[in-house]
Amino acid sequence: VLDIGFQPCRGGDVPLGRQLADHLAALIMAGRLPVGTRLPPTREVAAALGLGRNTVTGAYQQLATRGLVGGEVGRGTFVAARPVAGGTATAPRGAGQELGWAGLFSRAGLAVRLPTAFRGAERDGPVAYDFRGGRVDADALPAHDLAWAFARPFRTRAGLRALASHQDPFGWPPLRREIATRLADRGIVCEPADVAVVSGLQQAIDLVMRVLVDPGDAVALEQPGYFGAALAAAGRGADLLGVEVDRDGLRTDRLARLLRVRRVKLVYVTPAAQSPTGVVMSPTRREALLALANEHQVPVFEDDYDSELRWTTPASPALKAGDRAGHVIYAGTFSKALFPGLRVGYVVAPRALLHRLVASRFLSDFGTAVVEQAALATLLATRGLERHVRRIRRLYQARRDALVAALDAQMPAGTRCSRPRGGHLVWVSLPAGTDPDRLRQEAAARDVAYTPGEIFHADGAGAEHVALAFTTLDTAAIRAGVARFAAAVRAAGGGTRRRRSERAAGRRAPASRGHRKEVADARR
Amino acid sequence: VLDIGFQPCRGGDVPLGRQLADHLAALIMAGRLPVGTRLPPTREVAAALGLGRNTVTGAYQQLATRGLVGGEVGRGTFVAARPVAGGTATAPRGAGQELGWAGLFSRAGLAVRLPTAFRGAERDGPVAYDFRGGRVDADALPAHDLAWAFARPFRTRAGLRALASHQDPFGWPPLRREIATRLADRGIVCEPADVAVVSGLQQAIDLVMRVLVDPGDAVALEQPGYFGAALAAAGRGADLLGVEVDRDGLRTDRLARLLRVRRVKLVYVTPAAQSPTGVVMSPTRREALLALANEHQVPVFEDDYDSELRWTTPASPALKAGDRAGHVIYAGTFSKALFPGLRVGYVVAPRALLHRLVASRFLSDFGTAVVEQAALATLLATRGLERHVRRIRRLYQARRDALVAALDAQMPAGTRCSRPRGGHLVWVSLPAGTDPDRLRQEAAARDVAYTPGEIFHADGAGAEHVALAFTTLDTAAIRAGVARFAAAVRAAGGGTRRRRSERAAGRRAPASRGHRKEVADARR
Repeated sequence: VLDIGFQPCRGGDVPLGRQLADHLAALIMAGRLPVGTRLPPTREVAAALGLGRNTVTGAYQQLATRGLVGGEVGRGTFVAARPVAGGTATAPRGAGQELGWAGLFSRAGLAVRLPTAFRGAERDGPVAYDFRGGRVDADALPAHDLAWAFARPFRTRAGLRALASHQDPFGWPPLRREIATRLADRGIVCEPADVAVVSGLQQAIDLVMRVLVDPGDAVALEQPGYFGAALAAAGRGADLLGVEVDRDGLRTDRLARLLRVRRVKLVYVTPAAQSPTGVVMSPTRREALLALANEHQVPVFEDDYDSELRWTTPASPALKAGDRAGHVIYAGTFSKALFPGLRVGYVVAPRALLHRLVASRFLSDFGTAVVEQAALATLLATRGLERHVRRIRRLYQARRDALVAALDAQMPAGTRCSRPRGGHLVWVSLPAGTDPDRLRQEAAARDVAYTPGEIFHADGAGAEHVALAFTTLDTAAIRAGVARFAAAVRAAGGGTRRRRSERAAGRRAPASRGHRKEVADARR
Repeated sequence: VLDIGFQPCRGGDVPLGRQLADHLAALIMAGRLPVGTRLPPTREVAAALGLGRNTVTGAYQQLATRGLVGGEVGRGTFVAARPVAGGTATAPRGAGQELGWAGLFSRAGLAVRLPTAFRGAERDGPVAYDFRGGRVDADALPAHDLAWAFARPFRTRAGLRALASHQDPFGWPPLRREIATRLADRGIVCEPADVAVVSGLQQAIDLVMRVLVDPGDAVALEQPGYFGAALAAAGRGADLLGVEVDRDGLRTDRLARLLRVRRVKLVYVTPAAQSPTGVVMSPTRREALLALANEHQVPVFEDDYDSELRWTTPASPALKAGDRAGHVIYAGTFSKALFPGLRVGYVVAPRALLHRLVASRFLSDFGTAVVEQAALATLLATRGLERHVRRIRRLYQARRDALVAALDAQMPAGTRCSRPRGGHLVWVSLPAGTDPDRLRQEAAARDVAYTPGEIFHADGAGAEHVALAFTTLDTAAIRAGVARFAAAVRAAGGGTRRRRSERAAGRRAPASRGHRKEVADARR
């Protein structure tokens, strides 16, 4: 009766009743408890296995809920379902020959790799001094508004009907309307029909690459620049051409030179807050970029990811606002203002392109989660998002100032750091002599995490830089964290010896190419 | 003062105050109301535009919330932000030359098109007798459980912290655990590390195509078969090879013949409930398919989309349950059991492949919406989903029976319809003489919608079929809807003249290739 090979695992996070139910379910599905088999009385099982009787009864009920057993009053519990007769599906003779997957991958499959920073131990467990990018402060989230907005679609008949019917691959219509209206703030005049909702800004980038870029095509990217754009371009087999960034943004003179010698399929930029340096692209550069796009008939992808977060300058309109001829593909997101796991973004593009993007997204995943879209539409319509943005803008402004001040005060000589005018990162050039691998260990030992600079360089350079975000920690933690980080840098060989020659070298030559001017205001 | 060109639009769904705020915001962003400009007093604006004073005050407040104006007590409201000096971003000289997008698309971009059935009027507005697939019954949704589960992540500090930090591209760990446990019901023994969460089953299909299929590679698909798989394969530039389906599922003899002459990169199947015929793949065919996969070293994609919904047969385990050598890529979804806008699915695959899939999904969109994942994990852990599935299984069983009976009783001679053993569709072969275009009009005129058969044929065939879903309508509406549909078929020329020869022809030869046996039990 009890020869079922069940080994309860105590102290784990799966309740014992659940473990028993799962074990019995597997036996039933494998045909080892055939249909009609009477399960032993719960009392006997409980006694034999040393379990509470309620645990066993609960397990039987779970099996009944799954439709695997049925009960008859006064007779007991019987196995109700089992594999189809013969159980053939579970019995190919022998194990067969294992597939050699490596030989089966497509070129696109071979090209992709999950960046180290996004797998394994680095993701696991909380870090006391977390300066990594893309995270937000949980305490600053408008929890009450969010709970209400996410539950709301289920609370009206109209909401439920909308969820139950087919979704529009262009996006939830009320959300498209809200986005179109809101874009007036960025100087963009558009109708809902010009807007497509996507599952985050990264999907917008990937779809544009998919629709415009063939393997071997050239894509121009900021250097240093956002890793997501480089990943998506590399995933399409594109040639990645880095264009230098200085304190006015993308060096359009360099881009012009490039466009003269090479046909480029797409130029990717972050004008409102260059990622990772936080530089705002100057009006002159914007004009030059639009003129180049026109002259060479090259589409420009404007990643407006952090337009909510701007420091020390009045808002500049989007590049798209000056795009008269439809060269600019504009994309934004709600993840930065709210939280990273919210996968909702939007694209504004000329309709010919927009329809291809939506067709492409339709076969990719049909559409963006509707509850998220409905919740966001609610937050926008009730101005809840705007109130939140005003709050975090003040909050993060103070944190930005604190981080910059702490770096100035505490980092060893030879360190340079950006003065971000937008975004959520400070870009730090480490003093000469800092060993990047050693720094990783020393920082981890001090419970400090940061985003390594290599991530912002498609060519593996950038190890002498790090990006520090100021969104997660409060000002006191920022100061304490920078003290620890500075100690880690010293322990990793950076700026420990303060010889004049080294300091001068550190000041003259930030080691990676392509970002000399943007890492402004070196600490003296 | 009031020469701002504002035209209030009354009777629309945008409040007047919002309209005014948006209009002023656009003027500010465009530089037409320079920084420091004093806005006219609300009283004057209200009088001049014929608006309530509260409306105007509300509009000013909205502008303040957006950071576009600031107020000083006793002095008034002033424009606070404007485009950067010079406004260069909005002033490239002339409109420039419009981009010729058609010449810029990649091969993948040119290949995609949004299927007609998923755009335009067919999506718009409710239909009284809606037999289209992929929808569910709003009244059957567990609204209370869903509202609670979706609000829950925002209601605990741990939940908020998890939302605020970085997401795991493999999926929300508690959800991966729940899925791994639950798969025992399908006979699949796996660990959370074998599972990746994706944004719906379509994303699983698209990612597998991306990672395994190069342009020109062959993909074998069921014929008739699921349109999403064909779209994704076509989107990769694959050669689509249709393999006939009969009442035992995929014709493995045909597949064997194909594999002898052509290297195939992927075989796509729906064994639990063939889409659209509802056939369950027989044990013999399953064994044959696994043997072929082994012999030719071809991966098999098992789309287990509707495993919850099974009629008249005991559950068969998944094909994956018998996959000893790791040839089967298994994918499932929660959208069918819950609602279509819920974009959460999962893949179980050998780890070498799973890591490529996740790397590929990471660059596509970083990850699946975390609130949806957390809500589902809650629904699974509390058994709320299982209770719901048991309920809808009973509900839909009655509806399936009602639809099949109504079709038998009411459709004109020459109609054949499937007896689905799984899934949510009945596959109907229309009587000879039915004009598909005419039928669309006649059905629309009778407020009846269905899924046209062409969607399930990659080669444009299938016009003499339709798929009718039984998930949205109750049994009474199903009967009434079938009466209307039958009238539409007659009006479209199908089965009106009952000459013996025609009836015999209709019985002998359902017109499209590849699905002769599965459309069993013709009405006599």
